[in-house]
Amino acid sequence: MNAFGRVFRMQIFGESHGASVGLVIDGCPAGLPLSQEDFLKDIERRKGGIQKGTTPRKEDDLPIFKSGIFNGKTTGAPIAIFFENNNTKSQDYEKHRAVPRPGHADFTAHHKYGGHEDFRGGGHFSGRLTVCLVAAGVIAKKLLSQHQIQVQANIESIAGEPDIEAGLQKAIAAKDSVGGIVSCRTSGLPIGLGEHFFDSVESLISHAVFAIPAVKGIEFGAGFAAATMFGTEHNDAIMDATGKTKTNHSGGVVGGITNGNDLFYRIVVKPTSSTPKEQSSLNWETNEVEKFSIKGRHDLCIALRVPVVLEAVTAMVLTDLMLLEQKMKRTI
Amino acid sequence: MNAFGRVFRMQIFGESHGASVGLVIDGCPAGLPLSQEDFLKDIERRKGGIQKGTTPRKEDDLPIFKSGIFNGKTTGAPIAIFFENNNTKSQDYEKHRAVPRPGHADFTAHHKYGGHEDFRGGGHFSGRLTVCLVAAGVIAKKLLSQHQIQVQANIESIAGEPDIEAGLQKAIAAKDSVGGIVSCRTSGLPIGLGEHFFDSVESLISHAVFAIPAVKGIEFGAGFAAATMFGTEHNDAIMDATGKTKTNHSGGVVGGITNGNDLFYRIVVKPTSSTPKEQSSLNWETNEVEKFSIKGRHDLCIALRVPVVLEAVTAMVLTDLMLLEQKMKRTI
Amino acid sequence: MNAFGRVFRMQIFGESHGASVGLVIDGCPAGLPLSQEDFLKDIERRKGGIQKGTTPRKEDDLPIFKSGIFNGKTTGAPIAIFFENNNTKSQDYEKHRAVPRPGHADFTAHHKYGGHEDFRGGGHFSGRLTVCLVAAGVIAKKLLSQHQIQVQANIESIAGEPDIEAGLQKAIAAKDSVGGIVSCRTSGLPIGLGEHFFDSVESLISHAVFAIPAVKGIEFGAGFAAATMFGTEHNDAIMDATGKTKTNHSGGVVGGITNGNDLFYRIVVKPTSSTPKEQSSLNWETNEVEKFSIKGRHDLCIALRVPVVLEAVTAMVLTDLMLLEQKMKRTI
Amino acid sequence: MNAFGRVFRMQIFGESHGASVGLVIDGCPAGLPLSQEDFLKDIERRKGGIQKGTTPRKEDDLPIFKSGIFNGKTTGAPIAIFFENNNTKSQDYEKHRAVPRPGHADFTAHHKYGGHEDFRGGGHFSGRLTVCLVAAGVIAKKLLSQHQIQVQANIESIAGEPDIEAGLQKAIAAKDSVGGIVSCRTSGLPIGLGEHFFDSVESLISHAVFAIPAVKGIEFGAGFAAATMFGTEHNDAIMDATGKTKTNHSGGVVGGITNGNDLFYRIVVKPTSSTPKEQSSLNWETNEVEKFSIKGRHDLCIALRVPVVLEAVTAMVLTDLMLLEQKMKRTI
Repeated sequence: MNAFGRVFRMQIFGESHGASVGLVIDGCPAGLPLSQEDFLKDIERRKGGIQKGTTPRKEDDLPIFKSGIFNGKTTGAPIAIFFENNNTKSQDYEKHRAVPRPGHADFTAHHKYGGHEDFRGGGHFSGRLTVCLVAAGVIAKKLLSQHQIQVQANIESIAGEPDIEAGLQKAIAAKDSVGGIVSCRTSGLPIGLGEHFFDSVESLISHAVFAIPAVKGIEFGAGFAAATMFGTEHNDAIMDATGKTKTNHSGGVVGGITNGNDLFYRIVVKPTSSTPKEQSSLNWETNEVEKFSIKGRHDLCIALRVPVVLEAVTAMVLTDLMLLEQKMKRTI
Repeated sequence: MNAFGRVFRMQIFGESHGASVGLVIDGCPAGLPLSQEDFLKDIERRKGGIQKGTTPRKEDDLPIFKSGIFNGKTTGAPIAIFFENNNTKSQDYEKHRAVPRPGHADFTAHHKYGGHEDFRGGGHFSGRLTVCLVAAGVIAKKLLSQHQIQVQANIESIAGEPDIEAGLQKAIAAKDSVGGIVSCRTSGLPIGLGEHFFDSVESLISHAVFAIPAVKGIEFGAGFAAATMFGTEHNDAIMDATGKTKTNHSGGVVGGITNGNDLFYRIVVKPTSSTPKEQSSLNWETNEVEKFSIKGRHDLCIALRVPVVLEAVTAMVLTDLMLLEQKMKRTI
Repeated sequence: MNAFGRVFRMQIFGESHGASVGLVIDGCPAGLPLSQEDFLKDIERRKGGIQKGTTPRKEDDLPIFKSGIFNGKTTGAPIAIFFENNNTKSQDYEKHRAVPRPGHADFTAHHKYGGHEDFRGGGHFSGRLTVCLVAAGVIAKKLLSQHQIQVQANIESIAGEPDIEAGLQKAIAAKDSVGGIVSCRTSGLPIGLGEHFFDSVESLISHAVFAIPAVKGIEFGAGFAAATMFGTEHNDAIMDATGKTKTNHSGGVVGGITNGNDLFYRIVVKPTSSTPKEQSSLNWETNEVEKFSIKGRHDLCIALRVPVVLEAVTAMVLTDLMLLEQKMKRTI
Repeated sequence: MNAFGRVFRMQIFGESHGASVGLVIDGCPAGLPLSQEDFLKDIERRKGGIQKGTTPRKEDDLPIFKSGIFNGKTTGAPIAIFFENNNTKSQDYEKHRAVPRPGHADFTAHHKYGGHEDFRGGGHFSGRLTVCLVAAGVIAKKLLSQHQIQVQANIESIAGEPDIEAGLQKAIAAKDSVGGIVSCRTSGLPIGLGEHFFDSVESLISHAVFAIPAVKGIEFGAGFAAATMFGTEHNDAIMDATGKTKTNHSGGVVGGITNGNDLFYRIVVKPTSSTPKEQSSLNWETNEVEKFSIKGRHDLCIALRVPVVLEAVTAMVLTDLMLLEQKMKRTI
């Protein structure tokens, strides 16, 4: 499934080198003002070409509204948005067809879809699809901001260095790619979002977060550090009737439910699978392992593009829960 | 929602100190032999009283079959199983009603349900409910074992110590509780389980895993260590046509899809929120922060009980995907 | 799936001659007073033995609350309710095993579940399961009544006779079973329930209604009579700002959405498949068509039991929509 | 929700006078050959301008593939298809804004979406959206035909006349619109599709069918006629091991499950709400009931366009069940 959400639900589609990528949002509240301009900043944040370490591919990523918006506002009907793929170079990819790139979905997709998958540039598995998540995030964040809820993701480290440039320098020096840590903090949340067990906030957030390619781990609050803490140390003492706690080791979620403190979590982004360096993989035609290197444009560190995507999926989950919990109206 | 799964779907119910806890499994293949005996070992693994560090509460946790089993086999109709609550001491809990225990759902549940929640012993939020997950896991693991798929979880460390006894000793010495790390490895999986984006294996596994109380983080394969690896180092080179890779930094999932290697992930379990030590929390009647300590039986380290629960939710997700992907039949 | 609903969701389980039947309701608002007494009237309405034409089977159908109710009120956690099966005579059924009863699920269930199904008394396919629907309906109707919404089903005709006794007399005279028409009217609904296309009120109501065994047709408002009406005749003229219409040919739903008038629909219930009369069917052991007659207790007219079940599924759907549309609170 | 299906799932979007309408199909098996040509015949069947009684609006309804198709075959990734809206005349509609047209969603949509809905030509509620259903149906029918399953819908009567021309003549003579009856027959189905209770074939088919605007009733097999039949008369005697029955009063579904006979049902389509004749409705600005007549192009009898749409939703449900029941592969 390429869809997620109970009330505020998104469906994505598209391939890296196909005609376009896009999304449909079903269940968006009616009456939200929405224009192309609302999307530009976040799409820019996600784009390559800004920072050292991201790919020089230039995309004119203008969201094209196809439905659900009328007189500059959402109507309550499904919102379809698409993004054209204008700047693709498929020939770079086709020659590697018989050699599944390590770390990419080439091998698994080939097996799963019987060789019918669109393999050009990763096809449907491409990071290109994250522009659809970003677009949904713009809408979700705009809805949340009307309730004074702010979602903010930041890079915590690249290649182990809190200084981003220093981290990227490692990649450049090694002619390789590097990974990173990204955190996400949401403030202004009401107490009571999330449900016990299978719809816990951690369950839903992690479900959505692992939809982002290259994410391999998530931790809430103190996270893995809790393994070496004592109970009295980890427990967050409640200080007043608003639920404000002295510490926030829980990351703002207790019993699967928001407790009125900041929702905070961290993720790890693996190093970009495509690197300039020579690698080995099986050639499934010759059935021999061969060496090869990947040409073309690729990010040294995909983590740099992730913060805005992380905000997007977080906002999407929280909007859904706000609607479900009736803390956000279905018509503005 | 207290339900999860698309084809193999479970619904849980019950409270720690209510009449019973239980589960309904909808979509279980017909024809699987099933008896009470199948459940005993895993229920025993989950129970307190075995190891130092787990609570002395004795529960006669015999699964009572209410439907869906006929002549010793599953029928294809919903399987209802319940567990009676025989050994509960509610009075221990009621006196703390006005003081939400830090780290527990007392405060969040109170707000979410307007004070109507069953607060005795954590009510529906209690770890007691994990016996329902374990029961579903027994069925799912039995189904998977017919396909030579084995799910095995292990404690990796307690309080930072690979030696469990040493870790527990820390808790005893400090008169406090401690956390731990648990890993889960599944072997024998076919290539091709999981779907791109929102139903990635990582998305579904993490969704289910965060339904287990006290879990605060998850990482697949190299996990957070990937943050400081180079791409060529992290990439798992494919060695032969079965998809066998030289390393398994991806944890057996690439592009959200199983790649034929072991599915491997680690989780962190926070220290038990209830500890023998004095703590502070708000009294919501007096509106003042007061000191209190929790009497009664409690685990020094809840992580000790988690492996069998982790296996259960993992098996549940994988069974669902096996059915969806038509690699497991709906009638045996 | 034996589950239905998005926010207010029910899961049913059980077999006619198994240990019990029951249901779990997930997503019920917290704080609704609920006692066994609330259920007695509707369970009585559904029971046999009251009217000529219904089976003499006596069932002590007391709902046993297993979870989700505390201090006499719903808690917001899943509500599990069981009904024990005390009065079953399986031996009546087993001798017919090789001869699938026409009109029953014997043949289809046998094929679908590879012979593993519980065939005693129809097993999971039995009308016995409708007691679970009735129980969910009691809760849903109680919730709706707090919003002045009333759901009322009535028998319109039996065997074509508006006089019920006359209709049943036809069955008795023919030593056969008969069908009937039942209608359901809901008053007090707000404008705006239901969603365009796949979650239209007609879609959801009919989905739930066809879960009731023996229902073979449904029509909203003028229904099939609309086939011979002119547009200006069928259209309901809006008379005032509340949406009150001069006629109600639409049955209270326009564009899939409630329009503030009574929701009205009719269903047809086929004659009971089991009749005292001799019938023919294939013996799947001898592979020959043979004559047989069904002994034991059976309803002459199952339609007599349907009104309370119809109210139940209608109330269930409407409660779900009221919650989704935020016209009913999640905590009372 | 504008989405439906569990494995083979469709999401629709668009408005009558917006930029476009379209659909996304998630879960379509990989490897199905698919070209624009596959769609032309069914889109033509749905179009106006062919038969007396349908609107003269000319639409160049060419499906534009946006994703999920590569080298002429489905890839297993979501299939997005758009239809441009080229030939719209919004000005015809805007002048009626304050007077909700009886029988249309104008009033209900206005209330539900707080006046934010796109009201031009019915907006998202327009019959225009059925082209999306038709497109999904083309794909589903092509999948089913590989299993020798054929879905065929026919007009049974218009305005009560089995002769279509005679029925339409009634409308023309009265300068009004008329309704009709449409039936749908599916042959070649395996035994065992559908699930007990909430996912009965009748539940799923009716759910999907009532997503078609103007449908107000559905009956399976003998349908409403069963109300006056005896049990022995209605029961379909099984004749051989394939499940072939002597009669087909059940419409091919027993216990919610297909029995190997033709799936057969009938629906009623109400007369087109827009008619050339003068009507009355409330003007919600003046709050007075006023007379008005609807100009512009409109169908005399919308039922004429329905057969191909009915086939489409039927095929969609059956494809979903074939996949779920593992009788259709996920990769061709």
